[in-house]
Amino acid sequence: MSKETTSKSRPWDVLHREIEEDDVVGVESALENLTPSEKARSLSRLSAEDQSKLLTMLPAADAADLVEDVPDVQAAGMIERLRPEAAAPIVEALPSDGQANLLGDLSKGAAEGILDELSSQDAAEARELLSYPDESAGGVMAKEILGYQNHWTVGDVLTDLREFADKYADYDVQYTYVVDGEDRLLGVLRLRDLVLAPSRQPITDLMIADPVSVHAEDTLEVLGDCFEQHHYIGIPVVDEENRLIGAVHRNAVLEEENRQSEEAYLESTGIVGGEELRTMGFFRRSSHRLSWLSVNVFLNIAAASVIALHQEILSAVIILAVFLPIISDMSGCSGNQAVAVSIRELTLGVIRPRDVFRVFWKEGMVGVLNGIVLGILLGGIAWLWQDNIYLGVVVGGALALNTLLAVLLGGVVPLALRGLKMDPALASGPILTTVTDVCGFLMVLTFAAKYLAELTDG
Amino acid sequence: MSKETTSKSRPWDVLHREIEEDDVVGVESALENLTPSEKARSLSRLSAEDQSKLLTMLPAADAADLVEDVPDVQAAGMIERLRPEAAAPIVEALPSDGQANLLGDLSKGAAEGILDELSSQDAAEARELLSYPDESAGGVMAKEILGYQNHWTVGDVLTDLREFADKYADYDVQYTYVVDGEDRLLGVLRLRDLVLAPSRQPITDLMIADPVSVHAEDTLEVLGDCFEQHHYIGIPVVDEENRLIGAVHRNAVLEEENRQSEEAYLESTGIVGGEELRTMGFFRRSSHRLSWLSVNVFLNIAAASVIALHQEILSAVIILAVFLPIISDMSGCSGNQAVAVSIRELTLGVIRPRDVFRVFWKEGMVGVLNGIVLGILLGGIAWLWQDNIYLGVVVGGALALNTLLAVLLGGVVPLALRGLKMDPALASGPILTTVTDVCGFLMVLTFAAKYLAELTDG
Repeated sequence: MSKETTSKSRPWDVLHREIEEDDVVGVESALENLTPSEKARSLSRLSAEDQSKLLTMLPAADAADLVEDVPDVQAAGMIERLRPEAAAPIVEALPSDGQANLLGDLSKGAAEGILDELSSQDAAEARELLSYPDESAGGVMAKEILGYQNHWTVGDVLTDLREFADKYADYDVQYTYVVDGEDRLLGVLRLRDLVLAPSRQPITDLMIADPVSVHAEDTLEVLGDCFEQHHYIGIPVVDEENRLIGAVHRNAVLEEENRQSEEAYLESTGIVGGEELRTMGFFRRSSHRLSWLSVNVFLNIAAASVIALHQEILSAVIILAVFLPIISDMSGCSGNQAVAVSIRELTLGVIRPRDVFRVFWKEGMVGVLNGIVLGILLGGIAWLWQDNIYLGVVVGGALALNTLLAVLLGGVVPLALRGLKMDPALASGPILTTVTDVCGFLMVLTFAAKYLAELTDG
Repeated sequence: MSKETTSKSRPWDVLHREIEEDDVVGVESALENLTPSEKARSLSRLSAEDQSKLLTMLPAADAADLVEDVPDVQAAGMIERLRPEAAAPIVEALPSDGQANLLGDLSKGAAEGILDELSSQDAAEARELLSYPDESAGGVMAKEILGYQNHWTVGDVLTDLREFADKYADYDVQYTYVVDGEDRLLGVLRLRDLVLAPSRQPITDLMIADPVSVHAEDTLEVLGDCFEQHHYIGIPVVDEENRLIGAVHRNAVLEEENRQSEEAYLESTGIVGGEELRTMGFFRRSSHRLSWLSVNVFLNIAAASVIALHQEILSAVIILAVFLPIISDMSGCSGNQAVAVSIRELTLGVIRPRDVFRVFWKEGMVGVLNGIVLGILLGGIAWLWQDNIYLGVVVGGALALNTLLAVLLGGVVPLALRGLKMDPALASGPILTTVTDVCGFLMVLTFAAKYLAELTDG
C-alpha cells in the first residue's frame, strides 16, 4: 500500500492534525519534508481556517517562505483571509519585489489594510513598487541593492560586505553599484573584480563606467531584449534624473515573461483575468469564465441566425445540417492556429502590428494549401456518403474558402488588436469564430441554393 | 516621415545592401544598432541566401552571438542551410548548453554533419548533452563550471581566477565547486566567501559541504521545485557516482519552462511539434497544422453523423439546425476553459493525475452554475424568438447539461492523459469536443423528439 493511499499519512492530514494541536514544531517538520509544489498541493487541501491558523502560528519569516513557495493567486487568497495585523508581519518578511507582487494580487481594500500596518519606510517602498505596472522594469525590480559612494576604496567595500554579511545574505552581491553624492548611477562594480584588486584602489578605477541601465517605465519587451543582448544577471534601474532606484534581475524578467505567457494561454480559452486555480473562490472562478462565455453566446446566436434566414434551403437539403457544425468547428480550428502563431510572434517581437501584409501573405499560402486538402477531404467524404458530387462540391468548396478566410483573419486580427493597444489573447478567438461562422454558413447555404436542383435530385 | 516607412532605411534593406557589397564592417555596424528582437525580425526579411552569406562572412564568434539572439527555430533554420564546414565554427563558438540546444533543433542529418566537423572534445561534450532529454537537468545544464581539487587554498583559487580571467569571462564564477581526486562533488565555494577569507585558508574550510545537487536525469519539475526551495542561482549536476558533470542555472530552468508553456499553448491550438514561426518553411508549417486538422475532420464527421441519424426530427423542426452549431461551439468553449486550468495546475504541480475526484467536484460546481446561466440565456432567447417555450426548454436544457458534461470532461481528460504519460495539450481539445458534440447533438435531438408535437405546433 503506497503512502498516499493511507489517509492518515497524506501530508495535508498530518498538517491538519498538527494545526489542530497547535504544534508549531510538528507543523514545521511536516512542511520541511515537502517540496514547494507539494506544499502548494497540501495547502489547497486544507480548509480556509486551517490555512489562516497555519500562517498565524508560524514565525513570520517561515510564513513568508511558505507564501513564496506557493503560486501567486494561492498566496494572495491565503493572505487576504488574514486580519491585516496578522498579515503585515508576513508581508514585511518578504523581499521588496515579493511584497509588491503579493500586494498587487490582493483586493485594493486588503492591500491598503496591510500597508497601514507596515512600518512607514516599508509601506513607502511597497507603494512605490506598486505604482509601476507588473510588466515594467519598476514592477519587477528589487530594492535590495548595494550602492557605494564614488570616493570609496576596494577595502571600504570589502569591510562593509564583511560587516553586514548577515543583512546582505539575501542580496545579490554579484553586482554592486557606484553612485555620486546625489545617488546618480556612475558605474557597476563586479564582485569578481573586487576579489582580484588591491585594497587601496578607488572603486571608480575598477567600476564599469557608463553602465547599461533601464528606466522604471521600460517595458518587459525592452528588458527581455536588454538581457538577450547583454549577458548580465542584473541591470540597474534609474529614474529620470539617472538616480539609482533598484535593479532588475534576469530571473525576475523570465518569471514575469512566464506569467504573461501563462496568462495569454488562459485568456485565449476565455478565462478573463488570465489566472485561475481551483483554490480560488467558486464565484470568482465561475464569473471569470461566464463573463466571456455569455458574450460568446450572443456572438454565436448572431452568427447562427444566418442559418435561420436560409431555412427553406436547409429544409430542402436537410443533410446540410450535418455539415454546418463541421465547417464552423474546422474553420475555428484553422483560424485559432494562426492566432496562436501571431500571438507567439508578437511576444517574441519577430512581428509588429504593422507587418500585416507579411502575415497575410504567409498565412495565405498555408490557407490555400490547407483549404484545398481539407476541402477535398470533407467534400470527398460527403460525395461518397450521399452519392452526390454536388454535395461534395458545396461543402468542400465552402470549407476550402472558409479555411483560407479563417487563417487570414486569424493571422491578422491579433496584430490589429495589438495595434489598437488591446489584448489579443482574450478577444481574437471570439472575433474570429463569429466572422468565420457567418461566412461559412453563408457559403454553404448560398452554394446549395445555386445547386438546389442537383442536390435534391438524389 | 518616420525612419521605418522610408524603404531605403529599413534595417533589412541596409543589411541586404551591406551583404551584397561583402562589407563585413558595414554589416557589423548595421547589426550593432539592432536589439535582439529587431535582429530576429530583420533576418526573417532577408532571403535564405542573404542569411547564409551573412553568417559565413561574420567572424564565428559574432555569428554565434547572432544565432543566440534569434528564436531557436529561426537559428536552427539558418544553421541547417549552411554547409557543415561553415556551420561548425559557429556552433563551436556557442556555450555548451547553446550548442546542445541548437543541435537538438536540427534534423538528425544536419546535426551529425556538424558534429563530424567539431573537435573531438567538443563533439563528445555536445553528444553527451544531446543524449539527455530537453526537459531534464542534463538537457539544460552548462558544462562551463569551475571545479577545484580539495587540497587547494583560497590563494590558489584566486590565482587561478586571475590567471584565466579571459577564459572564464563567460563562466558563472559566483559558485565554484570543490571535488576530490576522482571528480566527486564535495562542496560549493561561493565567490563572496572567497573574497572575505585569508589566502592560506584551505578551500575545504570555506566550502558548503554536502551541497544540494541534482542528477542529470532529474526532470524540469524537480529542478523547478529545487530552485523554489533554495534561493541559489546554480545547482551542481552529478552522475550516479556523485561525479560533478555540470551545473544547472536558474535562468536555464526558467527559459526551458517558458519554452514548455509556449509549446503547450501552440499545441493546444493543434500545432503539432509545439513550435511555429513564419520563418519556417511553408511545407513544414502547413503539414504541422494539417496533421492535426485532418484528424479533426474525421472526429467532426463522426460526431456530426449523430445529426444524420436523426434527420426526420430536424426536418420536422428545422429551426433546431440554428442551435446545433451554437451548442457545439459553446460546449467546446466551456470545456476548453477547464482543460486550460487543468494543464496549468498540472504544470504548477498543484494537482496530480490521481486528483481526479477533486477536479471533478470543483468543476462540477462551476459546471452546474454556468450551465444553468448559459442554458437560461440561450433557452430564453430561443423561446422569445420563436414564441415557443418548448424550444427554449429543449435547447436551454441541452446546453445546460452539455456545459456540465464539458467542464467535467475538460477538467479530467488532461489528468487522464498525463496519467497515461501522454501530452495533454495536443489531444485534450479534440477528445473533448468530439464527445461534447455527440452528446450535445443527441440531447437536442432526443429532447426535441420528446416534445415533437409541441415544437411543430407553433
